[in-house]
Amino acid sequence: MNTTQTTVKMIFDRWNSLNKSFDEILNAVTDQQLEKEIAPNKNRGIYLLGHLVAVHDAMLPLLDFGDKLFPELADPFLTSPDKSVANLPAAKELREKWVKINDILNQNFDRLKPEQWFERHTAVSDEDFIKEPHRNKLNIMITRSTHLAYHTGQFILLK
Amino acid sequence: MNTTQTTVKMIFDRWNSLNKSFDEILNAVTDQQLEKEIAPNKNRGIYLLGHLVAVHDAMLPLLDFGDKLFPELADPFLTSPDKSVANLPAAKELREKWVKINDILNQNFDRLKPEQWFERHTAVSDEDFIKEPHRNKLNIMITRSTHLAYHTGQFILLK
Repeated sequence: MNTTQTTVKMIFDRWNSLNKSFDEILNAVTDQQLEKEIAPNKNRGIYLLGHLVAVHDAMLPLLDFGDKLFPELADPFLTSPDKSVANLPAAKELREKWVKINDILNQNFDRLKPEQWFERHTAVSDEDFIKEPHRNKLNIMITRSTHLAYHTGQFILLK
Repeated sequence: MNTTQTTVKMIFDRWNSLNKSFDEILNAVTDQQLEKEIAPNKNRGIYLLGHLVAVHDAMLPLLDFGDKLFPELADPFLTSPDKSVANLPAAKELREKWVKINDILNQNFDRLKPEQWFERHTAVSDEDFIKEPHRNKLNIMITRSTHLAYHTGQFILLK
């Protein structure tokens, strides 16, 4: 195993482990619990779930895997704070979309060779990438892993 | 910049950014706020702070940087749940220890060359490391980054 392969394995071991932990919590909480705030006057579980679906969905174009599956989730869960949008999607729908987006991401992840993770992501130009080679696809996985960990620490408070 | 250098930069950019975020929250909350629970019947801020000091302290032996600075924090903040130990250290003391452990870690980090981060950490044997080269020092940084992110997501609820 060379350094590139080892690095990609480390990052994906962590990503997969975090997703598994989040799924275990999500499967353990009811739709009713999702309506609760994680702490008094803070975001509700349902908002965090929708937020994570929207953030993972945005990884598709960023990693050059194609268009978002659920662009309609950006407004309620990325640009708007919780409790500011009436008629959020139902918990059942968000649970299904969470499974769907992660399935599609995993299918795309499997197609990339280790060295391709060190290629640029789509938010950086070819020109800038020469000077800043750390702005690669693997870096997206690193930042989205800590993002998922951050919200998992909150989501578990619903239990 | 080769792949090894790029990888180490990515991981440390994330680590440093997470530490900065945590410090900003810690500096914004009072000792009185630290006594509060992050959510009803959950851990208190002071416990999370002590827990993070103890976990970062344990990185010293794990990364072969020497002995723990504060081994006395393991019992109250690693093996015992919150509210089970009387007489926890004062907030002021834990704040100072948090600064101290991260200073010492940073001094040690600066001494390692990028390729040394791919050497084994001390919890894995030479023999096992041949088969599992991902059990290296950089992997400790990855798992501790997501650990810090997880608790930062909780700690911010004190504000």
